Amino acid sequence: MKVMVGGTFDPLHDGHKRLLGRSFEIAGPSGQVVIGLTTDSFAGSKIHPIRPFAIRRSELEEFIGEKKFTAPWRIEPLNDRFGSAIDADFDAIVVSEETLPVAVEINRHRRENGRRKVDIHQISCVLADDGRWISSTRIYRGEIDVHGHVLK
Amino acid sequence: MKVMVGGTFDPLHDGHKRLLGRSFEIAGPSGQVVIGLTTDSFAGSKIHPIRPFAIRRSELEEFIGEKKFTAPWRIEPLNDRFGSAIDADFDAIVVSEETLPVAVEINRHRRENGRRKVDIHQISCVLADDGRWISSTRIYRGEIDVHGHVLK
Repeated sequence: MKVMVGGTFDPLHDGHKRLLGRSFEIAGPSGQVVIGLTTDSFAGSKIHPIRPFAIRRSELEEFIGEKKFTAPWRIEPLNDRFGSAIDADFDAIVVSEETLPVAVEINRHRRENGRRKVDIHQISCVLADDGRWISSTRIYRGEIDVHGHVLK
Repeated sequence: MKVMVGGTFDPLHDGHKRLLGRSFEIAGPSGQVVIGLTTDSFAGSKIHPIRPFAIRRSELEEFIGEKKFTAPWRIEPLNDRFGSAIDADFDAIVVSEETLPVAVEINRHRRENGRRKVDIHQISCVLADDGRWISSTRIYRGEIDVHGHVLK
């Protein structure tokens, strides 16, 4: 299966790693994974500073390299919420709990454009030690680290 | 992974078969699949007649047997929309486009009950030859057959 997944991945935390790991599992060893990585201008709308695209891409590449996933993959820049997902020929989109509505919207647009809908896989967020989601915002605020450990 | 999926499966059509096939793929060869099959009294709220539980169960068992899926599986009766999904210990729920809201609701209840949320996999419906969904209601009305071929 050809799978699409997207994000800002800054910093790459355990929730992102689960999302990416599951994307490769769903794609299968002979599938394909396309990772949409938000551009600096698009990611700039976040409420906290974001590291440059090239640095975020390196961190992704390093993680994927370490994991030795067998499916071919590539990173493509994401300039808006949808990227190429409205028109591309693929099978499934992988999203987090926060971005499920975007996937539903993508399918609606695909249907309007006469394209077949894709399967939607919503991967649950990973919880920090305090039982709340691991999120980039919380890491940026210094509340938790990338593994969800609470920082005193 | 332990996966749950549910339905009335009457008659078992190509959309159901895709849903079940993907459930076994997502579970993986060493995972587990629990298939919730609506009871006659619960399924009785549908707008068209439903064949008895035992017949629907046999049709499911025959299909699964033919497919030679390797993951262990079992069928359990579904007396309401949620079945055991609020409290059971499992990893992922597989739903169709129609039942995505039920899965979101299940996760909300799980969270309220202090249980971890499960991944949600929404499998796209299979389209009939006329480009509309294959559905039991359409088959019952004699519009299409179980493979989505339009009946004259």
